[in-house]
Amino acid sequence: MARPTPLSGFPEWLPDGRIVEQHVLDVLRRTFELHGFAGIETRAVEPLEQLLRKGETSKEVYVLRRLQEDPDAPPERGGQLGLHFDLTVPFARYVLENAGHLAFPFRRYQIQKVWRGERPQDGRFREFVQADIDVVGAGSLPYHVEVEIPLVIAAVFRELQAIGLPPVRILVNNRKVAEGFYRGLGLEDVEGVLRSIDKLDKIGPAKVAALLVAETGASDEQAAACLELASISGADESVIDRVRDLAAARGAAHELLDEGLVELGALVRAAAERAPGVVVADLKIARGLDYYTGSVYETILVGHEQLGSICSGGRYDTLASDGANTYPGVGLSVGVSRLVSRLLSGGLVRATRSVPSAVLVAVTNEDQRHRSDAIADTLRARGIPVEVAPAAAKFGKQIRHADRRGIPFVWFPGEIDHDGVAGADQVKDIRSGEQVEVDAQVWAPAEDDLWPRAVAATP
Amino acid sequence: MARPTPLSGFPEWLPDGRIVEQHVLDVLRRTFELHGFAGIETRAVEPLEQLLRKGETSKEVYVLRRLQEDPDAPPERGGQLGLHFDLTVPFARYVLENAGHLAFPFRRYQIQKVWRGERPQDGRFREFVQADIDVVGAGSLPYHVEVEIPLVIAAVFRELQAIGLPPVRILVNNRKVAEGFYRGLGLEDVEGVLRSIDKLDKIGPAKVAALLVAETGASDEQAAACLELASISGADESVIDRVRDLAAARGAAHELLDEGLVELGALVRAAAERAPGVVVADLKIARGLDYYTGSVYETILVGHEQLGSICSGGRYDTLASDGANTYPGVGLSVGVSRLVSRLLSGGLVRATRSVPSAVLVAVTNEDQRHRSDAIADTLRARGIPVEVAPAAAKFGKQIRHADRRGIPFVWFPGEIDHDGVAGADQVKDIRSGEQVEVDAQVWAPAEDDLWPRAVAATP
Repeated sequence: MARPTPLSGFPEWLPDGRIVEQHVLDVLRRTFELHGFAGIETRAVEPLEQLLRKGETSKEVYVLRRLQEDPDAPPERGGQLGLHFDLTVPFARYVLENAGHLAFPFRRYQIQKVWRGERPQDGRFREFVQADIDVVGAGSLPYHVEVEIPLVIAAVFRELQAIGLPPVRILVNNRKVAEGFYRGLGLEDVEGVLRSIDKLDKIGPAKVAALLVAETGASDEQAAACLELASISGADESVIDRVRDLAAARGAAHELLDEGLVELGALVRAAAERAPGVVVADLKIARGLDYYTGSVYETILVGHEQLGSICSGGRYDTLASDGANTYPGVGLSVGVSRLVSRLLSGGLVRATRSVPSAVLVAVTNEDQRHRSDAIADTLRARGIPVEVAPAAAKFGKQIRHADRRGIPFVWFPGEIDHDGVAGADQVKDIRSGEQVEVDAQVWAPAEDDLWPRAVAATP
Repeated sequence: MARPTPLSGFPEWLPDGRIVEQHVLDVLRRTFELHGFAGIETRAVEPLEQLLRKGETSKEVYVLRRLQEDPDAPPERGGQLGLHFDLTVPFARYVLENAGHLAFPFRRYQIQKVWRGERPQDGRFREFVQADIDVVGAGSLPYHVEVEIPLVIAAVFRELQAIGLPPVRILVNNRKVAEGFYRGLGLEDVEGVLRSIDKLDKIGPAKVAALLVAETGASDEQAAACLELASISGADESVIDRVRDLAAARGAAHELLDEGLVELGALVRAAAERAPGVVVADLKIARGLDYYTGSVYETILVGHEQLGSICSGGRYDTLASDGANTYPGVGLSVGVSRLVSRLLSGGLVRATRSVPSAVLVAVTNEDQRHRSDAIADTLRARGIPVEVAPAAAKFGKQIRHADRRGIPFVWFPGEIDHDGVAGADQVKDIRSGEQVEVDAQVWAPAEDDLWPRAVAATP
């Protein structure tokens, strides 16, 4: 076959890019587990009717059929299947299916690929990895979970800054604040107002004001008040006072507003203490059409704002319901592929080498390959990643083989003298050229050389 | 919605089952990396024409379409897409697509889900995880790779026996031995003979003999000789002598036979030294319709033979070809889901707990939650997985919360006296009931309690 070309929207990485992605995935997993989140995976497919429950996402779904399926046969149990487009719908189904076996509140993380049949564009893929955390309660879920979730994500990003991730801002808002403020102003079409405010970054305040008047029946004053609220942001509790002052000035009193401000204040206060400078209350965050009922979150990469939110979520009062029980949830979803794609394409992060091996064991001649294999096994048993040279070529060629892959050390089995006695092994650091006598039972590379690492790329 | 039911053929695990699966995946990854295999992932989809190149697998493919796709629109670039049914086809495509960026011989591992629209049955799934290793050369690939690959897999299974995996037998054969023997006998329809021999376990020797006579034109004597060859197996080099003796007795001399026996002998010799008792030469292993040209491998779980092969592969002289270059490969593929499913359903392995947390930090009252959060952050910074109690309930209830999840330790923040001075924290091992004063900067659980582990289940 001819050389194939990539499929647009289906990203793949070369081995060194995969090392960067794997590092990000490892940081996500470890941070989530340190915070007590249990890992699960769900199947890639869900019944189509389940995927379409929300309605608006129908255009994005990939539907499956078996190639040899008889079109006249009755549909299989479960009906038509589609690939999941997020991890929230499958998780809600998993919770209902397994509720009897789970202990609530249930803390889970889930790192998997999702698929959307969208037109591919920069930062938007048809296949991509998401990493989700959610806490779901049975019947009720206390507010402090809404404080905890963004702080777990802040801990992830703190770890990733060590490899060159730019600073992030986790922008938080609370639906109760917005809804209470609008209702206090006398605006009842809360969803309409949120939908208009959500367009602020795209179309600007003048057009949003016009939309508010035209579509939600707001007066010019009410529209102006909504825009004033949306303009408030800040990383400390003074932001709460500014909202209170605005509400007082505009006469927008509502119980829900007070409740929301207490919650948002608690979040900002805890964040200022536990992740200073990362979490910013931003009253314009609306998260459009999603069914959030409390906190909402978006995350921007500073200097890469046009990439869009790399981590979004919020609180649902009804993540799932089976009639008898309702399961409220709070969650956040990291767009791993979007993030990794930017780290790689922006030249922000690189891998220290493209293979796991810290050592290439040279082969003196093919008859002696078993000696090199034995050395490799000894090093591996001590946790050192090793490969053996593919051919007993001249040592210069074997060293070039290591060099091309970024393998830092080449190991030479001791020469065998005329009496059949083996001399000491030697290892060469091919970066410095230094070569020393070594014992495979004792020698180890420096910790930084042991495994390939993702590191900040020097520009 | 009503409580959903599982979809047959799409396995999912509860959190404790996922801990067992994750342990298996971690062992695979670590062992592969210790042997210098670089991890890659490929997209889940391939153009349908690419998936159907082998022909025989067409009935298994899931084809995708976008729900809102215009049936009259011209097909997208890349044509119709299907989900990959193995990791070999995508890897061959990846090698061709990226050949200019890869260093050969290229050693890669790949652990991903694959999909097959088969009728689900015990041990056969529609969605399952495979873990593949391959070494691929540009133009040529030396035989010693065929020795190395099954020994890497043997190392994986050795690690997994620590958590209760039954012993495995990696059965090896060499196509050259079979082909040389058949040709030496005067049988030219080598594929026909292999196809018949492959049915030995299913239909027995008498019916295979009849098939050989009816379909490959073998005489009764030739058929008997093929069956005699297929009956030979053994874990040391004597097996090679037995084949040589049989060939001499039957007058089956052929250059390919000699070449194959030298290779198979080298594999058995190396395996006896490096993984004693695991690798068995079994001359009936044919691997049916796959296009192997040298070593072939199958793996059985001793005592669970009816599960079928849990790890199969071999050497392809043409893993991929773009006309100008040919890429030979040797690989093995572990059926992870089949293995994990058996470990769990057979009650062979269990997780020590269902959540990552080693410690539950109790909350004295909601006003003091920030103190519990601070303790949790201190422990996490020291690498200890921790969660904070969801509610400031009575301590008995908080202890039960930990107990239900298998969390071994509950941490109590020191009481605050009338002067506002905090006493020492205490930690309780809820298994023994022992409670001691501790400092979050110093205390650590025993290593076995730090993370949940997969362990052999006591029957």
